[in-house]
Amino acid sequence: MNIIVAQSGGPTSVINSSLAGVISAGIENDFDKIYLSLHGIEGIINDEIKEVDKEKYKNNNIKDKLMARPSSILGSCRFKLPESFDDEVFEKIFKTLKAYEISTFVYIGGNDSMDTVMKLNVYMKENNITDINIIGCPKTIDNDLMEMDHSPGFGSAAKYIASTLRTLRTDVDIYDLKSVTFVEIMGRHAGWLATSALSANYKMDKEVVNLVYLPEDQKSLDQVFDEIEDALKYENNLIVAVAEGFRDKENRLDEETFTNKNDAFGHKIVSGVASRLADIVRNKLKIKSRAVELSIVQRTSNLISKTDASEAYNLGYKAIEIGMDKTNLIPVLKRKDTASYEVYYEAVSPEKIANKEMKIPKDWLVDKKTLEEKITSYTLPLITGSIEQSYENGMPVFVKLDDFIL
Amino acid sequence: MNIIVAQSGGPTSVINSSLAGVISAGIENDFDKIYLSLHGIEGIINDEIKEVDKEKYKNNNIKDKLMARPSSILGSCRFKLPESFDDEVFEKIFKTLKAYEISTFVYIGGNDSMDTVMKLNVYMKENNITDINIIGCPKTIDNDLMEMDHSPGFGSAAKYIASTLRTLRTDVDIYDLKSVTFVEIMGRHAGWLATSALSANYKMDKEVVNLVYLPEDQKSLDQVFDEIEDALKYENNLIVAVAEGFRDKENRLDEETFTNKNDAFGHKIVSGVASRLADIVRNKLKIKSRAVELSIVQRTSNLISKTDASEAYNLGYKAIEIGMDKTNLIPVLKRKDTASYEVYYEAVSPEKIANKEMKIPKDWLVDKKTLEEKITSYTLPLITGSIEQSYENGMPVFVKLDDFIL
Repeated sequence: MNIIVAQSGGPTSVINSSLAGVISAGIENDFDKIYLSLHGIEGIINDEIKEVDKEKYKNNNIKDKLMARPSSILGSCRFKLPESFDDEVFEKIFKTLKAYEISTFVYIGGNDSMDTVMKLNVYMKENNITDINIIGCPKTIDNDLMEMDHSPGFGSAAKYIASTLRTLRTDVDIYDLKSVTFVEIMGRHAGWLATSALSANYKMDKEVVNLVYLPEDQKSLDQVFDEIEDALKYENNLIVAVAEGFRDKENRLDEETFTNKNDAFGHKIVSGVASRLADIVRNKLKIKSRAVELSIVQRTSNLISKTDASEAYNLGYKAIEIGMDKTNLIPVLKRKDTASYEVYYEAVSPEKIANKEMKIPKDWLVDKKTLEEKITSYTLPLITGSIEQSYENGMPVFVKLDDFIL
Repeated sequence: MNIIVAQSGGPTSVINSSLAGVISAGIENDFDKIYLSLHGIEGIINDEIKEVDKEKYKNNNIKDKLMARPSSILGSCRFKLPESFDDEVFEKIFKTLKAYEISTFVYIGGNDSMDTVMKLNVYMKENNITDINIIGCPKTIDNDLMEMDHSPGFGSAAKYIASTLRTLRTDVDIYDLKSVTFVEIMGRHAGWLATSALSANYKMDKEVVNLVYLPEDQKSLDQVFDEIEDALKYENNLIVAVAEGFRDKENRLDEETFTNKNDAFGHKIVSGVASRLADIVRNKLKIKSRAVELSIVQRTSNLISKTDASEAYNLGYKAIEIGMDKTNLIPVLKRKDTASYEVYYEAVSPEKIANKEMKIPKDWLVDKKTLEEKITSYTLPLITGSIEQSYENGMPVFVKLDDFIL
């Protein structure tokens, strides 16, 4: 009875916490061998597979080291399985799984990767393969996965963003003039991360983030100008959080921001909306205006939320527990309706998650005050605590794959 | 006998350490009152002045809290004193200094601010003012101040950059393809910070930063393409550090990167060179290519080097010690020629620093190996240790001005 695990899609700061959960559960449930597929499903297709050295893993505290190491240590892919089950790639995958005597395969990924989990399970059903369980394990900084209270990865990204904005506030305030700093935050279709920036205002004398613009809440540029001019009446230096997917109603922002490139799943690659807004506001309002793109730095920061990492670990652990006798499921986080933050775990089928997106609830968007209250009470528990980092010579050092494979 | 202190120019992560040094030295040398001018020299011109509450400062551990708080807590300015001493602004300044019975005025700033220190001292000489000492205290992330081994502020920015690049390396490596990530780092005329990124390679199995492009070392775009293609032979995913001031010999990068805006000192505002390079390389080499701008986040990170903060504190402290009986001087850091890192302090006149720029030594630029060895042994001691940060509700909290003024 062997396990294989892979990481797919965009990386997060806690995707290796889920990997640690899978490995620890594999060891503690006495699986014979724990295999690691490199570059997601591509490693299984191309037979790029490593085996965990259980002794090294246990004796060198690799669990904690993985939880401190951002970004997919196994590598990743953006490979989309073909629609037709006749494609030889399916045969290749199951040939490899059989050769390595895999009984449980855990695929850590986002909504695209859950499409892979779903398709592999449909293929198994159609081909009567019953000795392998294929389980998903969720991750995404975007927090747009359905069926769960929040996604692992979101809390750490939100912690990085709110912390960076608090520090940025000390910078934008220094000159005695009026200015607008647009901070571009990841989120193509869902503005969870940009909204989470409002948590930075919690218990502060003055607002860290003054305005926020989201994909879920299109506005005309005139409305944006009005809101900025209004805000400048009570604050000299504005910080405006902008989700990369925000567009104005008239689509004037669109032309120059979309780069007209697509990734393998057909998603447009977007960025530059903050820079475009900064140019427009500088010209229109004749004030200092600039853009700060938090860029890919925000998705794999080593400022890791302890809560987020622990939950990601637990989800990886549960993926194995579920995958010991069931298939076609994904463990998810649910929040209890209690005064203090408590979660519980459920399992859902990938059909409910694959290729879908969870948006911010409409009733949160009625006004900024409501949005800020809702997102703050939602986000604060998720950013609690920090995972300790190792520093050598003044710089962080991370665990390597070679440290725990045979 | 009273002191006044102000902060000027761009902020750094340790500019408040120098402020703490000034205040502590003021208290320990029994000055009557310690005044804080808001927004640099503008606070003295416009009488925006606060007084330190010495008891609050001592009893609430404000020194340590200031050392953990990035960016000019007193605010800053980009005000350039006029060339003519007949201008009424000089009269205003000395009227205020007299009204507050100032005997020592410390101006914390970069090469532009040392122009202010120099001019005020010339004015005093010409007008026979002998009861005020005006002293500079250096700061800049750019490390381009003459007459010193390194500038306070550089070490923390270098620590942030190297640490961020090590983390970014975990991200850019995940896909099994070839890619180039251009990371834009501050530095208009001097490439110290971009070069310091090479320190991230220290004792790593593989290079974190593969190539670096500096203002001091112009290259043709063809040379850039060749170097990138060469590097791609041994590494799939390149990280290329680019100083914002790097330009190609044919000036093809220039058109779209300079925004044709000037600040008050006539410096062009530059940014966008990484993004332009990414576009050019994507089109020319047909590979994945993207830009990451570390933006203003790099200059006031709360990842603060303990060494840098201590040195900045000492410089502020020495500014007061010098300013008790001398004027027209600036304390600077010199490095001893010893195996282990040791510094000593000297005082130089502002004429030697104002409006000048220290470039990377020419003999460091002969090849990448030499540059990496030189910058690494230069930078590593400066990024040692971290200043502990206070976190509440998962986010950093910083000391406020109100916490230690009357």
